Amino acid sequence: MRDTYHEELDALGERLVEMTRLARNAIARATTALLDADLTAAQEVISGDDELNRLDDEIEKSAFDLMARQQPVAQDLRMIITSLHMAGDLERMGDHAVHIAKIARRRHPDSAIPAELRSIVLEMGHQAELLVIKAGEVVGNRDVDTALELDADDDRMDRLRRKLLERILRPGWQHGVEATMDVTLAGRFYERFGDHAVHVADNLVYMVTGEKPKDYDPEV
Amino acid sequence: MRDTYHEELDALGERLVEMTRLARNAIARATTALLDADLTAAQEVISGDDELNRLDDEIEKSAFDLMARQQPVAQDLRMIITSLHMAGDLERMGDHAVHIAKIARRRHPDSAIPAELRSIVLEMGHQAELLVIKAGEVVGNRDVDTALELDADDDRMDRLRRKLLERILRPGWQHGVEATMDVTLAGRFYERFGDHAVHVADNLVYMVTGEKPKDYDPEV
Repeated sequence: MRDTYHEELDALGERLVEMTRLARNAIARATTALLDADLTAAQEVISGDDELNRLDDEIEKSAFDLMARQQPVAQDLRMIITSLHMAGDLERMGDHAVHIAKIARRRHPDSAIPAELRSIVLEMGHQAELLVIKAGEVVGNRDVDTALELDADDDRMDRLRRKLLERILRPGWQHGVEATMDVTLAGRFYERFGDHAVHVADNLVYMVTGEKPKDYDPEV
Repeated sequence: MRDTYHEELDALGERLVEMTRLARNAIARATTALLDADLTAAQEVISGDDELNRLDDEIEKSAFDLMARQQPVAQDLRMIITSLHMAGDLERMGDHAVHIAKIARRRHPDSAIPAELRSIVLEMGHQAELLVIKAGEVVGNRDVDTALELDADDDRMDRLRRKLLERILRPGWQHGVEATMDVTLAGRFYERFGDHAVHVADNLVYMVTGEKPKDYDPEV
């Protein structure tokens, strides 16, 4: 049997996995809200973000308690510190889903995404889901090998974003200023969502190995 | 005389103040780069960001060491944890300055900011500087009263951003898609820079009082 201390450490990991599940749900619904001008989905994402914030707070409190009471060292301490970072990243992923949902809400009953861009945005939504699902597996299984794949998965997201911006910059673009702004920002929010998923994976690698996977730039 | 332990705690605070100084310099130069299409300034901001990243790493290592060796509790532990958060926010402020500098670099030798928007962007740059200067004072003096002012200072930044976007959305806007994208993103980067300065101040309040100043949404 595990003692209370180790149970509490395990509980940190479980909360993080739960956060990945919520962040996945948030980005999936936000994509629906955006593409289908689905106001109900948008509201769900916006109000559902409280739960991610609550888990982030819980992890912070629990980490603080563990450090104050148990005075962990070495790998346990590293695990607690990296859990704080991962919770912060997952909380921000929820925020990015909220930003996307708010674009959808603002443009409702219209869709913020012109028809010719739907397929790219849909792909970005899928890629965001794939990244956060993988991040959840990585955290749940302390899976360093899968963690190292996320960087390449995120490259695909970056390519999709560039494709999106190229489409806007083509001479034929005739959707006006508001659509340009919305698509520009939505593209950025998906990209940032992906970046944070990579950070989660990078932190898992650091947690397990004590080495950062690379000297990453948090936002290129 | 202070013992080594307390000297190391003090050194965390000094590094944070140094980060505010670097972040201030970065956003000031980034604004120059953006408004004057000043490529030298842009390059300085981009290469200068290493120093902010290095300080963030140093603070993380030092916090980890302090926790492992000294096993601090209560207020000291809270100070160390909040220092990690503040360093993370300041590092991100540097990233936002870099994003602005990269917009300037991409559009060089043109300016990314149409003449009629210069004054608003200049004001946003000044407001960003004011916010990070105040954040530095707040951290250096553990000044809770000033910390509580930053939220209102940041409201001014948010109003400037809205003003910027309203200008773009006016019927007379004729600067094309690329300018629309650049101004949209630059506006967001200034806004985010301000948000992170508020987080630094909020964390200082939490560090000193043990209470979060409000249940803040990290990115509204």
